[in-house]
Amino acid sequence: MSTTAQLICDLARQFYELGWATGTGGGICIREGEHVIVAPSGVQKERMTPDQMFTLSIDGTIVKRPADPTLRPSDCTSLFMAAIRVRDAGAVIHSHSINAVVATLLFDKEFSISDLEMIKGIEGMSYHDRLVVPIIENTARECDLAASLEAAIVAYPETRAVLVRRHGVYVWGKDWMQAKTQAECYDYLFRAAAEMRRLGVPTVTLKGVSDASLSSRPAEPFIRS
Amino acid sequence: MSTTAQLICDLARQFYELGWATGTGGGICIREGEHVIVAPSGVQKERMTPDQMFTLSIDGTIVKRPADPTLRPSDCTSLFMAAIRVRDAGAVIHSHSINAVVATLLFDKEFSISDLEMIKGIEGMSYHDRLVVPIIENTARECDLAASLEAAIVAYPETRAVLVRRHGVYVWGKDWMQAKTQAECYDYLFRAAAEMRRLGVPTVTLKGVSDASLSSRPAEPFIRS
Amino acid sequence: MSTTAQLICDLARQFYELGWATGTGGGICIREGEHVIVAPSGVQKERMTPDQMFTLSIDGTIVKRPADPTLRPSDCTSLFMAAIRVRDAGAVIHSHSINAVVATLLFDKEFSISDLEMIKGIEGMSYHDRLVVPIIENTARECDLAASLEAAIVAYPETRAVLVRRHGVYVWGKDWMQAKTQAECYDYLFRAAAEMRRLGVPTVTLKGVSDASLSSRPAEPFIRS
Amino acid sequence: MSTTAQLICDLARQFYELGWATGTGGGICIREGEHVIVAPSGVQKERMTPDQMFTLSIDGTIVKRPADPTLRPSDCTSLFMAAIRVRDAGAVIHSHSINAVVATLLFDKEFSISDLEMIKGIEGMSYHDRLVVPIIENTARECDLAASLEAAIVAYPETRAVLVRRHGVYVWGKDWMQAKTQAECYDYLFRAAAEMRRLGVPTVTLKGVSDASLSSRPAEPFIRS
Repeated sequence: MSTTAQLICDLARQFYELGWATGTGGGICIREGEHVIVAPSGVQKERMTPDQMFTLSIDGTIVKRPADPTLRPSDCTSLFMAAIRVRDAGAVIHSHSINAVVATLLFDKEFSISDLEMIKGIEGMSYHDRLVVPIIENTARECDLAASLEAAIVAYPETRAVLVRRHGVYVWGKDWMQAKTQAECYDYLFRAAAEMRRLGVPTVTLKGVSDASLSSRPAEPFIRS
Repeated sequence: MSTTAQLICDLARQFYELGWATGTGGGICIREGEHVIVAPSGVQKERMTPDQMFTLSIDGTIVKRPADPTLRPSDCTSLFMAAIRVRDAGAVIHSHSINAVVATLLFDKEFSISDLEMIKGIEGMSYHDRLVVPIIENTARECDLAASLEAAIVAYPETRAVLVRRHGVYVWGKDWMQAKTQAECYDYLFRAAAEMRRLGVPTVTLKGVSDASLSSRPAEPFIRS
Repeated sequence: MSTTAQLICDLARQFYELGWATGTGGGICIREGEHVIVAPSGVQKERMTPDQMFTLSIDGTIVKRPADPTLRPSDCTSLFMAAIRVRDAGAVIHSHSINAVVATLLFDKEFSISDLEMIKGIEGMSYHDRLVVPIIENTARECDLAASLEAAIVAYPETRAVLVRRHGVYVWGKDWMQAKTQAECYDYLFRAAAEMRRLGVPTVTLKGVSDASLSSRPAEPFIRS
Repeated sequence: MSTTAQLICDLARQFYELGWATGTGGGICIREGEHVIVAPSGVQKERMTPDQMFTLSIDGTIVKRPADPTLRPSDCTSLFMAAIRVRDAGAVIHSHSINAVVATLLFDKEFSISDLEMIKGIEGMSYHDRLVVPIIENTARECDLAASLEAAIVAYPETRAVLVRRHGVYVWGKDWMQAKTQAECYDYLFRAAAEMRRLGVPTVTLKGVSDASLSSRPAEPFIRS
């Protein structure tokens, strides 16, 4: 059994405890050279065992599958592969954290925040930078999200995450450690943004931002119907 | 000692950590063929041992009881049996989660929510579907709830859960895994609904819903006195 | 080393995880016949060991003390003894839970709540009963609280808990299991009351309550200055 | 491997679980005579091992470093050293707790609170005292904070903590136990202040405070842009 398979089980248990993987939701994949280790779909994420993992090639072909014939690879697989292919990601995390879902109710096309220390946890970002995360619309089937996720990745070349409205977030990194620590930073920032809105504190500070762009930021929670 | 008895202890500890089983509240039963394994009433749910479990037949008769003569089966037993009998449930979970209680203060006869990814965790539901959970009134004695719980199960043939006003929720599934993952999804959705109300976001989106039905949805928290 | 000493360490670790024993705060004592086992003052509650416990007689005399000469019995000792003496308690728990502190900011002389299932977790209470918890004013020194705690216990013969303004709560029971499960129920009810106030839902329902008594309930949070 | 190195790993895991060390953030150093044991920068705080620790002299020189050549000492090091040098601290904790960050959005130059039992957990403070924590402005690079942190420590000779706007808090004590229990008390008080503001309860009671000073306290959350 590969160490990576065990690592995925350990991380999934940690994500469950963080509230990212409630009810079999969420997931993680880790790249191993030309292969990607992916968890099965629809299983309790805090109770997975290494023998349940799939090994896929980068193009999505199943190279090795678990003995249990009822298992199929995570529904997130095509989205994971988009980040691996377009961004050369070494690991991708999908979270259903309620902080991410609330963030997609507070912002329209983009989540944005500035001047929080935690922003420095995202690769390439400094404290005063405005961190932007594109928000794509959810689809009835998870696999139908792949095209718009890929479009968002291309349209926002600096982002390390894409939010999915009323669903959650995808975060990636060059390896599992960067993917995980960035996922933690994003989750913290989503929660911080909600706290700031509740307090009436703008999530982006005024410095160097024109009045026009500010007046277009909704004062009220953004409601999509 | 049966594996199921141990599983009930493990799950109860997990439910305690989720805040579903505070102060001996909440519970779970799991079916084993023609028998049902049920925890005792009034014990600390995070400290149970397999030798404290009861084995009942489907009609509620005690087949095997723990050695400790002071123990009696969970007060939830008649409610558990209703879901097993009417829905052929393989496991039933009762939670006192504060998220469930708050949901019963926010809605009148029915909890309803749509367009959240987590809805897909409930069997038979899609992302755009409106998930409805009937709410029954609480009674002074838990056993007196059985009739109205059964009536709600019959009246809502698609539901996998019934909320009890100012009390909690009953959730079932074809086996313990489905019961547990659905219980997690419902709990997440109850919490999401409260967050949405706080933000002024409707819990049901407007698509295909007539103005008449929307105007009957209370803008203010529903208050039952 | 007595089993009770080990139990106190295990429970204190659980209370720390519940947020009741932050920063060495909170505590628990358990009676053993004519003796009471008490934790030391000012130590990290999640890291205690059985050899740090004190054994006191009911009148407060130290019968056995830990080898470490720097330790002294918990500051709560005289308050613990009041509940043991006046109510024949078998165990007393003191919590600094923020839910208890917030409850003392929301209510004036008495915390009161009705029609929540969790009320049934308090001995002698039914679902429709109005649960009342007296609130006493805090003092600069914990030992100075003993007299007013005892007066509250006498004035409210049915209570199993006393809130201390801006400080926390004392809860007792006939044994450690009842003290602990009641402490969990009270904490849940304090939190539920805060949620209800936020939603504009009265904590006591109107049935059989005169208008006069209701109009005296503050609509706004009670503020003591 | 020193016991202190293991202790730092254990405490860091606990801080991670408290939400103080999300995404490699936060940290702790412990003094051992003329040396200071410091964790490395940018590693997952809940997964550290003793062999990753640095030993520094009080002037900041590296005395012993881990075998892994990619590791460098925590970015907090110069700030840790300021508290050790100016206050003779035996341990310093840096937390990114969202409670600390929110506190810096609610107050301008100083966080202040009075009349909460938890205040007694801070050395030298009594229940009725007004606890003040200076707030310094964040800088793009953590090392640039050292001068203003040191100025705040000097300007507030009684403080055991300094808040950093939109970043977190530094807390110290004569040893690791005092630093940790004080960090827990401060975090509790930051959270309590936010709850009080939400309820419209002043964080400082009126006794003996002139009207003039009160009218200068912002009723609305302080917003820095």
